[in-house]
Amino acid sequence: MSQKNAFYAQSGGVTAVINASACGVIETCRQHSTRIGNVLAGRNGIIGALNEDLIDTSKESAQDIAALKETPSGAFGSCRFKLKSLEQNRREYERLIEVFQAHNIGYFFYNGGGDSADTCYKVSQLSEKMGYPVQAIHIPKTVDNDLPITDNCPGFGSVAKYIAVSALEASFDVRSMAKTSTKVFVLEVMGRHAGWIAAAGGLIEDYGIPVLLLLPEIEFEQERFVAAVKHKVESHGYCTVVVSEGARYADGRFLAEQGTRDSFGHAQLGGAAPVVAEIIRQSLGYKYHWAVADYLQRSARHLASATDLEQAYALGKAGVEMALAGKNSIMPTINRISNQPYRWEIGSADLSDVANVEKTMPLSFISADGFGITDECREYLYPLIQGEAYPQYDERGMPRYVVLKNELVRKKLKTFEL
Amino acid sequence: MSQKNAFYAQSGGVTAVINASACGVIETCRQHSTRIGNVLAGRNGIIGALNEDLIDTSKESAQDIAALKETPSGAFGSCRFKLKSLEQNRREYERLIEVFQAHNIGYFFYNGGGDSADTCYKVSQLSEKMGYPVQAIHIPKTVDNDLPITDNCPGFGSVAKYIAVSALEASFDVRSMAKTSTKVFVLEVMGRHAGWIAAAGGLIEDYGIPVLLLLPEIEFEQERFVAAVKHKVESHGYCTVVVSEGARYADGRFLAEQGTRDSFGHAQLGGAAPVVAEIIRQSLGYKYHWAVADYLQRSARHLASATDLEQAYALGKAGVEMALAGKNSIMPTINRISNQPYRWEIGSADLSDVANVEKTMPLSFISADGFGITDECREYLYPLIQGEAYPQYDERGMPRYVVLKNELVRKKLKTFEL
Repeated sequence: MSQKNAFYAQSGGVTAVINASACGVIETCRQHSTRIGNVLAGRNGIIGALNEDLIDTSKESAQDIAALKETPSGAFGSCRFKLKSLEQNRREYERLIEVFQAHNIGYFFYNGGGDSADTCYKVSQLSEKMGYPVQAIHIPKTVDNDLPITDNCPGFGSVAKYIAVSALEASFDVRSMAKTSTKVFVLEVMGRHAGWIAAAGGLIEDYGIPVLLLLPEIEFEQERFVAAVKHKVESHGYCTVVVSEGARYADGRFLAEQGTRDSFGHAQLGGAAPVVAEIIRQSLGYKYHWAVADYLQRSARHLASATDLEQAYALGKAGVEMALAGKNSIMPTINRISNQPYRWEIGSADLSDVANVEKTMPLSFISADGFGITDECREYLYPLIQGEAYPQYDERGMPRYVVLKNELVRKKLKTFEL
Repeated sequence: MSQKNAFYAQSGGVTAVINASACGVIETCRQHSTRIGNVLAGRNGIIGALNEDLIDTSKESAQDIAALKETPSGAFGSCRFKLKSLEQNRREYERLIEVFQAHNIGYFFYNGGGDSADTCYKVSQLSEKMGYPVQAIHIPKTVDNDLPITDNCPGFGSVAKYIAVSALEASFDVRSMAKTSTKVFVLEVMGRHAGWIAAAGGLIEDYGIPVLLLLPEIEFEQERFVAAVKHKVESHGYCTVVVSEGARYADGRFLAEQGTRDSFGHAQLGGAAPVVAEIIRQSLGYKYHWAVADYLQRSARHLASATDLEQAYALGKAGVEMALAGKNSIMPTINRISNQPYRWEIGSADLSDVANVEKTMPLSFISADGFGITDECREYLYPLIQGEAYPQYDERGMPRYVVLKNELVRKKLKTFEL
């Protein structure tokens, strides 16, 4: 069988463990060098393929590639760039195939969420039609945990662990201060469309913490929420609120959209956390503190879940093995076998079933009052945050995150206008 | 020598390691049980002494006391309650002495910042005058790092490590996304009066990150700041800004005070980070993300500095040993002996020299342009974040933080009106 090169790219928001998937892809390709030549990585994701900015990963030492397992973010750069539909912009897809052909690329490993699964699917279809078939494999990645078929998505477990631990720690803090000072702590977490990440904050109830979740799935009703906060503070002395950035009113408006103006009359952008805090202050007068975790949560490699890390690597590896087995247009998945003890295996899904399908949080995971999670949700979440996988630190006390050389291969084609 | 009980209380904002000082105090007292009977802890700090809410720490197992080393927050509760001056409210001080006398308390260990050093000093003076002399020892604690004489304060090293690591991780994230998405990341950190914590964010420059600090020590000049952001983004493709909550304009107004109004005309409270982000958007149009670390930073026991933890324990232990050696009205301190290798020893300071003195960050620690730190600052900071001291985790993936029984001893006095 002839030797082909592989293309690998990172897509969309990065995570604490997407580089572990990259490591899984590259190390496994290197183990099959008779079949797979070089792994060329897209600089800044798929844009790197369109621009023919292809990173020569053969220039990276085995040690540096291994260090990707311990390094958050996207080592080759990612991008928010969705290829248009085939009808709208066929030339982008054709350009991809042209670049793949010029660089003898026979394998396309695309590491991302729902949009990239769709792109991956189209590349596989079009390459065949164009007479240069490329095996297109989607490696799942998203902190949003919203890909279908797979039990969970790499990246989510580590964010969930970070949010659960951070919410627990901050709640201990508030409990210490509540007698004379802060009574309510509000933590804003990611999740524009689904409450998966906020749900992880609900786990701290198991540690005796009075916590209320504001999930995108449940319409925000101010009076009911204020009453719930009052009840928690009166019975426990304090309360923690974990609000999803996607929390919204019945009319669909996000809590974060308050139509506030600064002194110049400019619209003021704010997060959901300060809005929730202000509601509490005005309604109940409690002293509060609020935090917005933002990028801290998804890049927190220092507190990655060992389960998540292992799965991120395993899916990268599985993607390559599936390609070598002749598979095309698929995504390796996590199939859960049991909760206690947690056991899982690798499965696979056809990209035609993955593309453009969004998995939302089941309503059976949300408690009756809408402010918490159910036991079913707990049983789902805990295995995903199991185990600690710390990075190494240098003698100065900082983590040894690797920065790759990222040298580009020589271009062979004309410039492409994006 | 007769046996006396000890009183211990936590004061002000809690930290990731204040419980390690509590552990140092209690374990050392237990080792000297012929001299020190029981350690009674104030429930919710000094208020617990005034209310005669005294926690009987003898009811806690050795294992649980040891677990304090791994548990953030204040295990006995803290408070924001500054005793008034002797002239204004002599009865509060007299009540303290009355409670101490009723419970045979001969040692007063007060674990806090500048205000509590002052209280501690007054207790020592007044108890002598009242004919019931109590040995008053102040155990330093503050994330603000602003106590005089001691080289650094327990609590600060762990926050500094958390901010340095988190800023590094988020910066890796932004770098990955900058080609098509976020170009500037703004992180708000604590420090109302001094830039110690923000300075720790400056360490990431050593890891190749373009970072700008906004410190309370340097007047915020919008044009100069915007130009600096533009320069960083144009030369690196992205930029991280670490803004202290205490950053302010030349007229003394905090950046966070924007005089914004919501749709009902109510004053809108916000952080400094969204204000800085909005300035960048309006001036440069860059896509941004912002985070506010708030309590997450000071409670992040999951990423404590091993140096900080060791010092917190050592100062608690030293406080007891000094008391046993007959010392009074003092605070054990950290004296730095050398930077490389980092060596330190325990010293002591008279409380009369500590009370009401605030240590600010030396201007020699701030770079000429005001947006960064100097090598002198780096040499100061690195030793304080050295080493990782992880808590244990349970099989579900959550940290094993201890919650004490906190049983109160029987009251002997009449109720006191606060």
